[in-house]
Amino acid sequence: MYLEKINEPNDIKKIPREHWGELAEEIRQFLVEKISKTGGHLASNLGVVELTMALHLVYDLPKDKIIWDVGHQSYTHKLLTGRASGFDSLRKFGGMSGFPKRSESDCDAFDTGHSSTSISAGLGYVEAREITGANYDVVSVIGDGALTGGIAYEALNNAGYLGTNYVIVLNDNNMSISPNVGGLSHHLEKIRASEKYRGLKDSIVKSLEKMPNGDKAINKIRRTKSSIKQLIIPGMMFEEMGIIYMGPVDGHNTEEVVKALKTAKAIPGPVLVHVLTEKGKGYEPAENHPSRFHGTGPFEIEKGLPISTKKVADYTDVFGTIMHKLGDKNPKICAISAAMEDGTGLKRFHNFFPERFFDVGIAEGHAVTFAAGLAAGGLIPVFAVYSSFLQRGYDQILSDVCLQNLHVIFAIDRAGLVGADGDTHQGIFDISYLSGIPNLVLMAPKNKWELSDMMKFAVKLKGPSAIRYPRGASFDGYKDFRTKIKLGKAEELIKGSKVMLFAYGSMVETAQKTYELLEKNGIKPTIVNARFAKPFDEEYLLENMSSYKMIVTMEEGILSGGLGERVHVFLKSNGYKGKVLNIGINDTYVEHGNVELLKKELEIDPESIAKKILKANEKTS
Amino acid sequence: MYLEKINEPNDIKKIPREHWGELAEEIRQFLVEKISKTGGHLASNLGVVELTMALHLVYDLPKDKIIWDVGHQSYTHKLLTGRASGFDSLRKFGGMSGFPKRSESDCDAFDTGHSSTSISAGLGYVEAREITGANYDVVSVIGDGALTGGIAYEALNNAGYLGTNYVIVLNDNNMSISPNVGGLSHHLEKIRASEKYRGLKDSIVKSLEKMPNGDKAINKIRRTKSSIKQLIIPGMMFEEMGIIYMGPVDGHNTEEVVKALKTAKAIPGPVLVHVLTEKGKGYEPAENHPSRFHGTGPFEIEKGLPISTKKVADYTDVFGTIMHKLGDKNPKICAISAAMEDGTGLKRFHNFFPERFFDVGIAEGHAVTFAAGLAAGGLIPVFAVYSSFLQRGYDQILSDVCLQNLHVIFAIDRAGLVGADGDTHQGIFDISYLSGIPNLVLMAPKNKWELSDMMKFAVKLKGPSAIRYPRGASFDGYKDFRTKIKLGKAEELIKGSKVMLFAYGSMVETAQKTYELLEKNGIKPTIVNARFAKPFDEEYLLENMSSYKMIVTMEEGILSGGLGERVHVFLKSNGYKGKVLNIGINDTYVEHGNVELLKKELEIDPESIAKKILKANEKTS
Repeated sequence: MYLEKINEPNDIKKIPREHWGELAEEIRQFLVEKISKTGGHLASNLGVVELTMALHLVYDLPKDKIIWDVGHQSYTHKLLTGRASGFDSLRKFGGMSGFPKRSESDCDAFDTGHSSTSISAGLGYVEAREITGANYDVVSVIGDGALTGGIAYEALNNAGYLGTNYVIVLNDNNMSISPNVGGLSHHLEKIRASEKYRGLKDSIVKSLEKMPNGDKAINKIRRTKSSIKQLIIPGMMFEEMGIIYMGPVDGHNTEEVVKALKTAKAIPGPVLVHVLTEKGKGYEPAENHPSRFHGTGPFEIEKGLPISTKKVADYTDVFGTIMHKLGDKNPKICAISAAMEDGTGLKRFHNFFPERFFDVGIAEGHAVTFAAGLAAGGLIPVFAVYSSFLQRGYDQILSDVCLQNLHVIFAIDRAGLVGADGDTHQGIFDISYLSGIPNLVLMAPKNKWELSDMMKFAVKLKGPSAIRYPRGASFDGYKDFRTKIKLGKAEELIKGSKVMLFAYGSMVETAQKTYELLEKNGIKPTIVNARFAKPFDEEYLLENMSSYKMIVTMEEGILSGGLGERVHVFLKSNGYKGKVLNIGINDTYVEHGNVELLKKELEIDPESIAKKILKANEKTS
Repeated sequence: MYLEKINEPNDIKKIPREHWGELAEEIRQFLVEKISKTGGHLASNLGVVELTMALHLVYDLPKDKIIWDVGHQSYTHKLLTGRASGFDSLRKFGGMSGFPKRSESDCDAFDTGHSSTSISAGLGYVEAREITGANYDVVSVIGDGALTGGIAYEALNNAGYLGTNYVIVLNDNNMSISPNVGGLSHHLEKIRASEKYRGLKDSIVKSLEKMPNGDKAINKIRRTKSSIKQLIIPGMMFEEMGIIYMGPVDGHNTEEVVKALKTAKAIPGPVLVHVLTEKGKGYEPAENHPSRFHGTGPFEIEKGLPISTKKVADYTDVFGTIMHKLGDKNPKICAISAAMEDGTGLKRFHNFFPERFFDVGIAEGHAVTFAAGLAAGGLIPVFAVYSSFLQRGYDQILSDVCLQNLHVIFAIDRAGLVGADGDTHQGIFDISYLSGIPNLVLMAPKNKWELSDMMKFAVKLKGPSAIRYPRGASFDGYKDFRTKIKLGKAEELIKGSKVMLFAYGSMVETAQKTYELLEKNGIKPTIVNARFAKPFDEEYLLENMSSYKMIVTMEEGILSGGLGERVHVFLKSNGYKGKVLNIGINDTYVEHGNVELLKKELEIDPESIAKKILKANEKTS
């Protein structure tokens, strides 16, 4: 009834204050209903309904710039900027993105997707405003989890230094800024025991002692711990960096948030408004299981149960199982996650070997160098991470792990197309950027059994390696093909003739389907499971190339710097006279949508590949 | 006299306390004398003489692990671990590295080079010790500058959470933790004016007010700002993260540092010891000009003047000049540095356009996303950065700048071999990892004039671009070849026959020399200045390839994913029947040493290239 009245930016300002509560209620109903059909991020969006309303009540869009960190909590923002109709196609191919997109609306000030960037981007807008003499406000909305990312700290530090007018909203969804805040009083105890520490504090203590009853004041301060915490935590950390701290504010009280934002807007310099919210707020199943409703598929609304319950084993499960086995056998194996324990399948390892499991927060750079340190100390760390997030650790892989040839294993989940999350989450760059790193061994399994075998191989390897595997159901074909993994050796799966399909990882399944299509057209290709992208099997290629008039490389990643181009150069440099066809993703970002659709669009599906091969075959015949 | 007695680790412990001062003096003399001949990092090393002595007095090497952040301040550490004789070959090819190297000594616990990694690595050792049941201490030594890097914060946060015994030494060389600390009192003033803020502080203030004379206590606390700073800054920030703060300690008083380290060692949990040192300490010219003596060439000791005063114009100078010009003409141009204003040549821009210059600290990730924000706000930011340090911003270039196709210019200095700094600093990966990024245009100038032309072109481009140029003297050949820069178009410099040299950036100079060598052997090759690595000039290659029996690509970077492999695949995919030879760096890290020597070693010098071409020519004839 009130939601209907909102068709474009700023329409919310026409809703009288006394109906804000009803509007919030309607927004929640809308979100639950729509997401129950399409799937999407639910808990985080339900948590920021009032906060988003308040932002839209205080600021003027699109003139003012709101930057949503990570961005998957921007659904209410989309709704309040006239995009209600987009929710039917949410995260579908060609439909509305689940993240802010400048191409979608001029109310989306900055595209986000990876964590902890909103302060950097917001600060850019702020300084651009000052230089160009423009007149707009800038707000970055960042979660407490995202605040563990180093780039957020770098940006805060810079914002404090520059001192320009700017509002940062800390959306603290009841998880505390960092798990270690609770450790403070414990540590204070220890510090007090240290004479050295006492000495340091002398000057202030002496100042108080000179006062009548000053000693009591000192003791009083020491005893009122919670008050001290209020005073100094988390505000002090921000203020130390030159940022004014305001809060905490009840993030589900629209009026209170509006008031706080108005105050923050009026204060000169950078201001951080600490807002407390609850993930899943207003929808009981999501309140009770915020992590299940972080990203969800379609569900029935009443009980919040998923509509499709058939859970097929995916690579993440296979990885979780083998990690448990490896950890059980080898006390040197340890596991690292960057705030993705569930997503990467490390829960079981954590349960069984808590002392060997490390969740470092959203901190991929640190995770990689920490792994290097563990390896230098004699352990075998496995960093399980999504392909697109590992991009944050590129320099550390290159400069800390591989330069010292340390025994670190990168288990790269979500490698390849991921679907609904879209461009920032597609795991299509890892083969390319990792191939350029000396000493690093790159592998990808053809099926679920091979993932286990490769993990075992990586443990024995004594140097750095990375194993990539895609999101979703694990391939269970070629069960009986389980030859021993040997460094840099490929595996011939089907011996055919004329055409060789040299397929890497997930593309072995595609090669199998391509085979079936080609067979109907009279070509029975050889299928080779490449296994290693680096070093790839030069010997096999040299020995066999002359038997084929076409060699087709297949990988689920960008072509530039990938396996295919390197194989191409190798073959041609060694006198191969036939045709080399490189199948992979061309120089482009890949939007959101169903993975099968995306593959067709990118022409890396079996039909497109078969067509290309047949066409090339005609030419060479 | 005392230094002579130190021939292996722990020998320092035999020197009686009363002679520590003399030893420090001898170490300084040794360093000044040696570095005056070889060049190297001086100021930072003179600053940590007593700190290093204290570490060696308290800890037991190689059992205990000392990790030097950045690592260029480890000279005294090398000296005290028996490597005095290495100083004659410091930073020379085959000689002692200027950074810690595990391959050099078992007293070097971790190889460093890039900033801010020491806490992550140290924490890895710490947790490995706990898991393996080993018995050693771990100390990370990090500078205040390095503490602005996000990975250091990620690691501190994690260290506080884990709570394991561990000592971090903050080597604060008189620059303050962050330039913004000074802004605190200013901001406190503002906060006090805010009713909202006052409300928050009520509980603690009320507690005090109830005390007799409590109000005076409150005022007293407010007035004794420096004492408050002592109490809460910077210690509070660390303690908030769960790390015990100790300090500040006079870093030039060996006894005091020894005492502090012993205390820190005995305290359970992570402890940070704040040590104040002075860069260049004890050598007047370095004390007065710490930045000139950060990294220095050979100098005469008495006045500290460089031995070679002939300064040739380098690419950094050319860049600095054109930035000034561009900034003068176009008010949208702004410049970003990550703590490298001098090194990247931005001083002049800073002087003329202070409001458009941003030094963000050692924070490359933030720098890139901040640039994205500035561009989204309508400006044209230029991020000037060394090639190897830009690796820290890989994800941000991919996910924040290029995904949104924002108009950001990356001016990549030190691209190619850098010489004495060695493996962590060689700028040999950028062509490869940037080539895989959609929308990004990659350029490299053949000579100094072309760098200016490319900068102007990049300003007009309306999308993201990167221009790479090497360290050292700028090439001034081909002065009269100044055809207009067009997107993706190469430039033919010399029309020859049979062999085409397709050279990128710095390799045009090498191609010229290769030409001269080939000419003596009866081959007059064509020289093409590639100009663009992405998009490269497909049209030119297609039109001309059939005239050549050999096409030689030349780039100063790793081959995997570089320009050459992509050109190779392109030519072969388009039916080129001749030989393609890819000149570049094979899959390897490159150690320190004279650049000319390194090029010979890597076979990318004119002689080696000419030899390869002649050999290939024989085969194809």
